[in-house]
Amino acid sequence: MPISALHDRWQRLEDEEKLAAFRAMDLEDAEEFFSQLAARDTAELLMLLPAHSRKPWMRMLAPDDAADLLQEVDAEQRGELLALLDEANRKEVSVLLAYAEDDAGGLMSTRFARVRPDMRVDEALLYLRRQAQHLETIYYVYVLDGAQHLLGVATLRELFTAPSHSVVRDVMCDEVVSVFEEMDQEAVSRLFRHYSFLAVPVVDDQKRMKGIVTMDDIVDVVDEEATEDAQKFGGMEALDEPYLEIAFWSMLKKRGGWLSALFLGEMLTATAMSYFEAEIAKAVVLALFVPLIISSGGNSGSQASTLVIRAMALGEVRMRDAFRVVRRELAAGLALGGLLGVIGLMRIVLWQRMFHTYGTAAGPNAGLIGATVAFSLIGVVLFGTLAGSMLPLLLRKLGFDPASASAPFVATLVDVTGLVIYFTVASVVLGGTLL
Amino acid sequence: MPISALHDRWQRLEDEEKLAAFRAMDLEDAEEFFSQLAARDTAELLMLLPAHSRKPWMRMLAPDDAADLLQEVDAEQRGELLALLDEANRKEVSVLLAYAEDDAGGLMSTRFARVRPDMRVDEALLYLRRQAQHLETIYYVYVLDGAQHLLGVATLRELFTAPSHSVVRDVMCDEVVSVFEEMDQEAVSRLFRHYSFLAVPVVDDQKRMKGIVTMDDIVDVVDEEATEDAQKFGGMEALDEPYLEIAFWSMLKKRGGWLSALFLGEMLTATAMSYFEAEIAKAVVLALFVPLIISSGGNSGSQASTLVIRAMALGEVRMRDAFRVVRRELAAGLALGGLLGVIGLMRIVLWQRMFHTYGTAAGPNAGLIGATVAFSLIGVVLFGTLAGSMLPLLLRKLGFDPASASAPFVATLVDVTGLVIYFTVASVVLGGTLL
Repeated sequence: MPISALHDRWQRLEDEEKLAAFRAMDLEDAEEFFSQLAARDTAELLMLLPAHSRKPWMRMLAPDDAADLLQEVDAEQRGELLALLDEANRKEVSVLLAYAEDDAGGLMSTRFARVRPDMRVDEALLYLRRQAQHLETIYYVYVLDGAQHLLGVATLRELFTAPSHSVVRDVMCDEVVSVFEEMDQEAVSRLFRHYSFLAVPVVDDQKRMKGIVTMDDIVDVVDEEATEDAQKFGGMEALDEPYLEIAFWSMLKKRGGWLSALFLGEMLTATAMSYFEAEIAKAVVLALFVPLIISSGGNSGSQASTLVIRAMALGEVRMRDAFRVVRRELAAGLALGGLLGVIGLMRIVLWQRMFHTYGTAAGPNAGLIGATVAFSLIGVVLFGTLAGSMLPLLLRKLGFDPASASAPFVATLVDVTGLVIYFTVASVVLGGTLL
Repeated sequence: MPISALHDRWQRLEDEEKLAAFRAMDLEDAEEFFSQLAARDTAELLMLLPAHSRKPWMRMLAPDDAADLLQEVDAEQRGELLALLDEANRKEVSVLLAYAEDDAGGLMSTRFARVRPDMRVDEALLYLRRQAQHLETIYYVYVLDGAQHLLGVATLRELFTAPSHSVVRDVMCDEVVSVFEEMDQEAVSRLFRHYSFLAVPVVDDQKRMKGIVTMDDIVDVVDEEATEDAQKFGGMEALDEPYLEIAFWSMLKKRGGWLSALFLGEMLTATAMSYFEAEIAKAVVLALFVPLIISSGGNSGSQASTLVIRAMALGEVRMRDAFRVVRRELAAGLALGGLLGVIGLMRIVLWQRMFHTYGTAAGPNAGLIGATVAFSLIGVVLFGTLAGSMLPLLLRKLGFDPASASAPFVATLVDVTGLVIYFTVASVVLGGTLL
């Protein structure tokens, strides 16, 4: 199929190639192609077209798609494109634009199927059949009273299989799961995850129905949220645009900000180490294990924070689970720290025996150095898992996004503490011999 | 609504509480509740019930749900539960169980709506109306010939709005997007993302239709894949189970394996540093900046690998984009390295002026030390961004999962190189003064 192939290649084409390819299609193909583009690509294609030929394409879009598209262009273009719509649609699109993009209200479509409770089922089906063209979905039919209050919902399937002469009120389900306009899209997507809905109604605080959010919007949301979380966890601001498409300077700002902040935090390691300069001067061998020790703390912290962030995103872990998480991570930290400690101790003692890696000065004390490293690892890994697992919960408590408890953030936090732990253990274990 | 409240609390209840809560419901509520549980919870609840009362519940499940459930129990229980089904269903479930869980075939339902191409639309609607009870969805109707070859598809909406006397063949769309049985679920979910389908047909290599994968299965897949990727990126094996539910030892194995592997890799830092022991002994001040330098490389690498892994998962970046990625990251690495270099230089020179942080020996050379740190940062950050962005592409090329290019993995890779870069720069810049 040429259209789907073109879809795949679309983002790699130059502007003129896009325009030429689009114009080469017959009208039916062009309409199908246009309706399947992502909002960003639709906006771009529309702006490539000469101004006078934009109107029919703009009018082809459903209001929620038009609203999505208008969020991708700048304010001036938005006004121009909005002016291409007819009165009724312009009003509807403007209302949708007023919602924050990440609210249920910003995701919703106002073109839902509505019937009255006292309609007969065959009347309702006939009515649906006539309206079908203009609706986002006809598979859920919402039952509203005269003041638009949501009384119930029936699936097309239920209406379809009910006796023709029965009344909608008797077929509908009156326990409707609905969301408020201001509900965050992440919460809405958790709802979809929980129930297997195709669509969910959006209501205001008077239970008046405003629109529906459909499943296909939610797959995009789930992807979007996962991308945001991943990028925050990677130690940067969420890009909000595809990697290969975002302007270089915008990307640099989103990465440079966090990178500089982490760098400033990491400078504390230089300060911490300067307190132990005398110890390092006496036993240079201590410096050799600094990267090993602090990175182990960072790695174990990164594991713990990933687990907790992801479990929080899926609703598996909540604030009240904090104590259970602490208990798990305390045990895990001790076990994992012990594991690394044993490996580290063995490696140092064996290498010294076999290769005299650590020179003649430190050589006779290889066992003690190994013990220093081993005890430090237990402490650092334990601290890493605890800090990594608690930080996301703490951030949520303070009103921040738990996903900001990134691998680099946790590592920075653990590095400074790790150094203090390491040199403190060293001065206890090596006091009187090397120090 | 008591049922949805119970759903939310479900995983926190003890076994006896679950059983008591379930038994307290009237039959209709119990059926609704049961049908909305996740496969894992359904399996658990079923095994809590006494053996003689399992049959009606087991028979309530659609074949694909039954197959999901059976994948959650051990082999012995699987046989027992399978025996509770009637002949026809048992056969169907066994077929589904034979597919790998992560294939399109493992996700699919065999209860789809099928009609013949020469049926009249009103006949087809009547037929659907009778079958509706037993079908996964009636919203897509598949048109098959006598040998089950997929000829076309019509939405219920299309049939519903078509003239009653027209023939299915004239209403259906004959360019059907379908997937093969063995297609990986991640690829299937990318397809759903691309088109806004409610369901997609699964065919074998003869184009014979085997079943459908529905949108609600895909939301779960998208979540699952994002969780796996996040956990791999956090530097561990994917848990495959909820964090608070996985057995402690299973979790420890999945974390301990990677943590030990990273630890062994990180040991190379000790080896690398031992080559520079003489330099450290001469200028202990050099050791102070080791954590700062290597962590900056790790952080910039973690940013780059997150971006590329996520863009690959969404299909935005493919192998052939490697060159564009390199070009972007080369520029980003130089810019970000320069930024950190300037901050580092200023901080070292200022602190020395104000607090004489770096002692009297190194003091007069604070400018040179600052220059060493600054140049090293440029090199290390550049190396970090390049390694972080290329590693996921390289892993894909070698047949591994790009998400394994975790923050800790990249950091370990960059740490060793970072040390070499740092001490090499130091010996060039400080040669003749401090070294």
